[in-house]
Amino acid sequence: MADHSIILEKTLTKLLGEKKYTSLRDILITMNPSDIASVFETLDEDRIPLLFRLLPKELAAETFVEMEPDNQELLIRGFSDSELKEIVDELYLDDAVDLVEEMPANVVRRILAQADPDTRKSINELLRYPENSAGSIMTTEYVTLRPAMTVGEAILRIRRTGVDKETIYTCYVTNNRSLVGLVTVKDLLLAEDDEIPVQNIMETHVISLNTMTDQEEAARMFAKYNFLAMPVVDTENRMVGIVTFDDAMDVMEEEATEDIEIMGGMSPSEKSYTRATVWDLFKQRIPWLLLLMVSATFTGMIITSFENALAAQVALTAFIPMLMDTGGNTGSQSSVTVIRSISLGELEFRDLPRVVWKEIRTAVLCGIVLAVVCFVKILLVDKLLLGNANITVWVDLVVSATLAITVLLAKAVGCTLPMVAKKLGFDPAVMASPFITTIVDAMSLLVYFGIAKALLGV
Amino acid sequence: MADHSIILEKTLTKLLGEKKYTSLRDILITMNPSDIASVFETLDEDRIPLLFRLLPKELAAETFVEMEPDNQELLIRGFSDSELKEIVDELYLDDAVDLVEEMPANVVRRILAQADPDTRKSINELLRYPENSAGSIMTTEYVTLRPAMTVGEAILRIRRTGVDKETIYTCYVTNNRSLVGLVTVKDLLLAEDDEIPVQNIMETHVISLNTMTDQEEAARMFAKYNFLAMPVVDTENRMVGIVTFDDAMDVMEEEATEDIEIMGGMSPSEKSYTRATVWDLFKQRIPWLLLLMVSATFTGMIITSFENALAAQVALTAFIPMLMDTGGNTGSQSSVTVIRSISLGELEFRDLPRVVWKEIRTAVLCGIVLAVVCFVKILLVDKLLLGNANITVWVDLVVSATLAITVLLAKAVGCTLPMVAKKLGFDPAVMASPFITTIVDAMSLLVYFGIAKALLGV
Repeated sequence: MADHSIILEKTLTKLLGEKKYTSLRDILITMNPSDIASVFETLDEDRIPLLFRLLPKELAAETFVEMEPDNQELLIRGFSDSELKEIVDELYLDDAVDLVEEMPANVVRRILAQADPDTRKSINELLRYPENSAGSIMTTEYVTLRPAMTVGEAILRIRRTGVDKETIYTCYVTNNRSLVGLVTVKDLLLAEDDEIPVQNIMETHVISLNTMTDQEEAARMFAKYNFLAMPVVDTENRMVGIVTFDDAMDVMEEEATEDIEIMGGMSPSEKSYTRATVWDLFKQRIPWLLLLMVSATFTGMIITSFENALAAQVALTAFIPMLMDTGGNTGSQSSVTVIRSISLGELEFRDLPRVVWKEIRTAVLCGIVLAVVCFVKILLVDKLLLGNANITVWVDLVVSATLAITVLLAKAVGCTLPMVAKKLGFDPAVMASPFITTIVDAMSLLVYFGIAKALLGV
Repeated sequence: MADHSIILEKTLTKLLGEKKYTSLRDILITMNPSDIASVFETLDEDRIPLLFRLLPKELAAETFVEMEPDNQELLIRGFSDSELKEIVDELYLDDAVDLVEEMPANVVRRILAQADPDTRKSINELLRYPENSAGSIMTTEYVTLRPAMTVGEAILRIRRTGVDKETIYTCYVTNNRSLVGLVTVKDLLLAEDDEIPVQNIMETHVISLNTMTDQEEAARMFAKYNFLAMPVVDTENRMVGIVTFDDAMDVMEEEATEDIEIMGGMSPSEKSYTRATVWDLFKQRIPWLLLLMVSATFTGMIITSFENALAAQVALTAFIPMLMDTGGNTGSQSSVTVIRSISLGELEFRDLPRVVWKEIRTAVLCGIVLAVVCFVKILLVDKLLLGNANITVWVDLVVSATLAITVLLAKAVGCTLPMVAKKLGFDPAVMASPFITTIVDAMSLLVYFGIAKALLGV
């Protein structure tokens, strides 16, 4: 795919240089809008408007939607009012709303000025829904049918009004704007008789979204039910829009990326890595690094307060990194698993006791195996093979026992914190590796020195 | 959703106890197959077959597909041959293949015995495609049209043959089994004249998958192009199947979960957390914990070899956890970002120099800010506020300088390793926090003691 686009980029640049516009157009119209947009990303800015103007109207609008915001802005600034109007007229409403949300105020004013009054009104209504709600990602362009229409009439209505709809395959049956059922084009086409009324074949138990449903929840419902589109209703069950599967896919991808970024100790970003500047990356990363660095003061304080113990048993220091890392790793395993399950809607707060119980049993298994392997490894490798005379069997025992207890604590903390965070209304993903590591570090050191005191008397 | 299912579970159990089968059936037929399957998960095993038999044939098959493998097996073992045949006949081919892949051998033999010979042949063919390939997730039930058919004839063909097809909305135009174009039902319905031949309105630049295309790549193409379905062709461009958007969504979700699990230092699992046993979790987690624990031997060796330095400057030990953690955190930030970008298809190996350059600049910014804040914090908090007399300005300088250099190294390693892993054919996700932490730990300690030797002369 990527190599293909390099060849294409070269060909297009060459043809542009030679002003072979007919050939250029011939190549472009064979391409998918999404691919044209990708190629535009790789071109010099001043070539984009020229190439864009070669596209036929519909393909131009479709390509425009797929472009990155900075290129969209570049194009709009170069458009005449009538060119802008042509594009805005071709856009689906949800895409127009996305565009308005991305553009600076003066560009937005121009876009709204060119939209026809109805579209302008709809855009303004959609803009009022909170970010990340089903209302904010829905479109109002769908096919409605009436219950008493026959199958034949329904098909005729789709043929007449379908051209501007985002999907025609799921049609919604409404009565006084109230959603009473849905019927698919498959149902209509496969109906035995064109004279049957729609209400006889429609599905009346419709699963719908509310305008305020979180977009993540909406995406989960798409993944669960495999719907092509879902109706969005307001609090009085009046149908106000639809969300289509492609929007749900985008949300799924975004939400997974967001979770992964937060789990990696970063603020989530809407920009892709390739588009993010160094400054963007810096802003996304530095707050967490600072917070976590400063909170490591506690581990420092713990070590300082046990300085005498460490001086008496110099071998103890060497195992601090291993104990901290294993604690951190085992804690992240639990937190990452639980965070993902929460994201997929599999776990709720009331599952906490069951989760803790499962994690504790897993921790006991992991802890025993790790402690035994660790004990043998220290004895054979560190003491005998590497000849570290400071390591006694008692030191080995302290390290291995600490390891077992740390694993237990780490898994308990790792599975609990994300669920508590969720309950308190925070993003559970915050409670992943970096945070868990900081907490587990302090715990493992306290356990380490506690056991060292008890067994070694330091 | 979940609370709703508790109420439903109670109602259904009550009605079952009272043997009110007509009411039970009336409730079930209003429900979505996916929801019925969820409710079944919560019921006692012996009640499932009874409830399942209340479902009408088609709903029964749809529900069956949504159920977890253990419940499917339970049902099949209770089915008579004719009951099993009814379900198998109703299944789409890709679902039948999934089922065969999940069931134990003796159950598979029964399923194949009940399938009609054509289905059996198709199942066996699909089973031959490698796991995770487009071939393995495709279905062979799609609508084909011939180029010379008119729009009217095409619609008639869909009405006649559509009932068993997984989707009718995208129809594929073939000539001697070779894929020559596609036409959507929307195109057909909105065509101005029923007499136009399909070849005049069909899209001829069809983006297709190969049977061997990786399913992750296939899912990415769905997310990019927003297709409802994509055709799958063999090496000779002969059409052999289609993949639909719902399969792509499942793959996206699975692949994101897999990446997150691997990044969290676990082997990926096909079972959801709620279904995984303690033993499953143990097996998924212990290999990585052991590997990482043993590899921490190196950090231990480094510390041991600098024991004298640590004894001379006791204050140095207290900052080891902070340096290691910050290094680990900053390295994971880079690795996680790069891993996700690779998964989304945004980065390739040839982008490595660009990525490293971006990360180094980000690292310089982060490193300077962290080092300055760290220097001031140690001076004000650790030395003045907590009164640690062992901390000199020189010690503070050693720690802060180490921090800056560690951040730089960690980001360079964090962004490079996933890309190198990908190039070498490994899963880049392996190069996330746990691994990066282990490597960065060793590096930061070496830098720490190196600088300490130079500046403090220990």
